[in-house]
Amino acid sequence: MNVLVVNCGSSSLKYQLIDSDSEAVLAKGLCERIGIDGRLVYQKTGLDKEITEAAMPTHKQAIQMVLDALVNEKTGAIKSLSEIDAVGHRVVHGGEKFASSTVLTPEVLKAIEECNDLAPLHNPANLIGIDACKELMPDVPMVGVFDTAFHQTMPKKAFLYGLPYEYYEKYKVRRYGFHGTSHSFVSKRTAEFLGMDLKNSKIIVAHLGNGASISAVLNGECVDTSMGLTPLEGLVMGTRSGDIDPAIMEFIAKKENLDIEGVMNVLNKKSGVQGLSKLSSDFRDLEAAANEGNELAIGAIDVFCYRVAKYIGAYVAAMNGVDAIAFTAGIGENTTIVRAKVLEYLGYLGITVDAQANEVHGEEKVISTADSKVKVCVIPTNEELAIARETVALVK
Amino acid sequence: MNVLVVNCGSSSLKYQLIDSDSEAVLAKGLCERIGIDGRLVYQKTGLDKEITEAAMPTHKQAIQMVLDALVNEKTGAIKSLSEIDAVGHRVVHGGEKFASSTVLTPEVLKAIEECNDLAPLHNPANLIGIDACKELMPDVPMVGVFDTAFHQTMPKKAFLYGLPYEYYEKYKVRRYGFHGTSHSFVSKRTAEFLGMDLKNSKIIVAHLGNGASISAVLNGECVDTSMGLTPLEGLVMGTRSGDIDPAIMEFIAKKENLDIEGVMNVLNKKSGVQGLSKLSSDFRDLEAAANEGNELAIGAIDVFCYRVAKYIGAYVAAMNGVDAIAFTAGIGENTTIVRAKVLEYLGYLGITVDAQANEVHGEEKVISTADSKVKVCVIPTNEELAIARETVALVK
Repeated sequence: MNVLVVNCGSSSLKYQLIDSDSEAVLAKGLCERIGIDGRLVYQKTGLDKEITEAAMPTHKQAIQMVLDALVNEKTGAIKSLSEIDAVGHRVVHGGEKFASSTVLTPEVLKAIEECNDLAPLHNPANLIGIDACKELMPDVPMVGVFDTAFHQTMPKKAFLYGLPYEYYEKYKVRRYGFHGTSHSFVSKRTAEFLGMDLKNSKIIVAHLGNGASISAVLNGECVDTSMGLTPLEGLVMGTRSGDIDPAIMEFIAKKENLDIEGVMNVLNKKSGVQGLSKLSSDFRDLEAAANEGNELAIGAIDVFCYRVAKYIGAYVAAMNGVDAIAFTAGIGENTTIVRAKVLEYLGYLGITVDAQANEVHGEEKVISTADSKVKVCVIPTNEELAIARETVALVK
Repeated sequence: MNVLVVNCGSSSLKYQLIDSDSEAVLAKGLCERIGIDGRLVYQKTGLDKEITEAAMPTHKQAIQMVLDALVNEKTGAIKSLSEIDAVGHRVVHGGEKFASSTVLTPEVLKAIEECNDLAPLHNPANLIGIDACKELMPDVPMVGVFDTAFHQTMPKKAFLYGLPYEYYEKYKVRRYGFHGTSHSFVSKRTAEFLGMDLKNSKIIVAHLGNGASISAVLNGECVDTSMGLTPLEGLVMGTRSGDIDPAIMEFIAKKENLDIEGVMNVLNKKSGVQGLSKLSSDFRDLEAAANEGNELAIGAIDVFCYRVAKYIGAYVAAMNGVDAIAFTAGIGENTTIVRAKVLEYLGYLGITVDAQANEVHGEEKVISTADSKVKVCVIPTNEELAIARETVALVK
C-alpha cells in the first residue's frame, strides 16, 4: 500500500510517499513559500533532488504540483495517482478529543476545527492541507495523526496545572504535550530494540531537536511530558525559552515596553540556546563555537543539558524508576557531547556510558555499557513512517 | 545578646525578641493594618497574648508601639530599650549584590534600594521598616538578612533562563530563589541532626508552606532551587500557580479579557491548591475534604505531591545523588499524608518510610527506616532564630 504523508504548515508543506509493505520511501520533498511565490523540492529515492521555482498561490496548487511530480513520466515514483492508496496527515492539536489517529470524516474535521484555538498557528494550516488533498483526491481515504494523541494517557496529576480549575473546565487549559508521534514510535522501538516487554517497562524518551521534549512512558503509555498547553513549555530549545518563572513575562513587558504578544514572540523566536548564546539555535554551530572557547556557547549547551538531566530525574521519580532512556531527533541522535553531558548527571541511577558507542550518529545503538543498570540508547525517530503505519492500520 | 528580629511588610510587621545566648524567644508578635487603622499583637513568653487596637498611621509608629510593649512595666520582656543589642531585618531581595547577611550601612541600604524593581512589593516595605527602626534606635546596630542570599552559590547553568542573554546582562533576569534563610537553617540542621558532614553531603530541603520551595544543597551550598526571579515559580502553592506553560498567560488573557497584571493576580492569588480545589489554600481543609471524598481536594493534594516528588527527582539528578531529604515549614512539618505521598514516588532511591515515625508533627524526627538508603527527616524551620544568629555573628 502506498501512503502519501503530508505535514502542512501555513506557507509550507512536507511530503513523503511511503510503500507501507517495504516501508521504503519512494519519494519525498517539500513546498515552500506557498502563497508568496513558490518552490517545489522533489526527490525520487535514488535520483537527484529537483528544485522547481513556480507560483503556488494556494495549498491546493502546491499539492497539485506534488502530485504532478509524483506521476511525472521521467522521474515520477508512481505511474498514476490511483497508486496512492491513502493519505496520512499530521495534525498538531487534537485537544482532549483525539487519543489516537482517526479517519478524517466530516465530523472529525469539525472536531479538529474546534481545537483551533489551542493551536491557532498550526491546526488551521493542517486543515487547509487536508481540504486541498480531499479536493484533489476525493476517493482516497485520509487519516489524521495527532501530535498530542499519544500523551492523552497522562493522569490528571500530570496534566493539570496549578490554576483555577474552571480554566480546565471552561477552556480545557491543561498539559497536552507534542511530538507524540515521535515519543510513541521511539518508545515502542526502544523496547523492541532492547528486547524488553513494552507492557512492563519504564522508558524515558528525550526527543531533542530544534523543538525538544521529554516523555515518561510507563508500560507503553505516556504518563508525563515536558511540553504543555503549547510547545513552548519544558526544555530550553533552539529558539524557545521552555520553563521560566511566569512573572518574568510581566517584568520583561515593562522593561522592554512590549505587550503580551511581543513577549510571546521573544519567548518563541528569540530565546532558547539562540538567545543564551547570542549565536545560533543550531547545535553544530554551538559545538564549534564551544570548541573555540566561546563562553556563551559553552553556557548555552550547559543550560540545555542540565535541564534535560533534571527532566529525566523528575520522570524517574514520576515512574518510581526507569529501565531505559532513549535519545532521538536531530540533537539526540547526533550530538555526542549533549548525550555525554546529560548522562554525567545520572550516575546515581547506575548508568555507565560506553564512550566509544556514544560517538554514534543517527543510528540505533546502545550507548550504555553492558553492566549499566539502566539501558541508554540512540533510536532515530521517523515521524513520517509512524504516520504511514497509523494510516495503514486504519484504512486497510 | 538580645536581638530584635523584624520582618516588615507593606501593611504589617512581625517581630521577635530573642536572647541569642539561650536562643529563647523573650517576646513576639505582630502589627497589622499599618496605615489603615492598626492592631498590635504582643506576647511575652509565658504570658497571654495581648491584642491592642490602636491607630498606627506609619511603620515608625507601629515600631514605637512594639518598643513600648517590650519595655512595658507589667508585661515587658525587658526593662529598657538599651537591652536591645541589635536588630535583624528580613530583606526579601538582595539581587546579585548580597550573597550573605550584612550590616546595614547607608551604602548597603542604597544597594538594597537598587534591588527594588526585582521585588517591588517587598523590598520597599523592608526598607521602610529599617528606616523606622534606625530613627527610633539610632545607636543599635542593624543587620539585613536576605531571602535570596543562600541561593547565590547556584551555578550559572541553574540560575540562567533560556532567554536572550541580554536580559540577564541588562536587567539581571535570572533565578534567585527565596526562603533562603530557611533552606540554609534546615540544611545545616539536617546534617547536624543526622550526624553527617555538611561539607560532604547532598541534601534536599522541601520547604512546604503556603509558599513552597525546594532546594538542592551540595556540600553545604545551594546549587538549585525552585523559586525563580520571583516567588511565583516552582511548586504548586497555596494560591500561587508555580510552573506553567508561559503561553498560558496569553491564552488566559484573551479568554478572560485580562491584561498582564490581571493574569499575574490570578496566578499569584487565585491559583495553586486553592484554585485546583475550589475550596481552600489550607492543607488542613484540603485533607478534611479529601477524607470526605471531595474529588477536587484529592486532586489538588495529588498534584501538589506529584510536583514535589518531581522536583526532588530533578534535584537528585542535579547533584547526581542524594544523602538526605528534609521536610520543613507548615505542611512539611505537619502533614503526614503529603510526606507519605511524596515518598511513595521515591522508592527507586532506596528510600523506605517508617510509617509510625511519619506521624510526627512539628518536631525533629527521622521518618525513614534504619535501613533506608537515603535518610528522610522532619526539621522544623526557624527563620527568626536564623536571622538572630546571622545578626549576632555580624555585630558581636
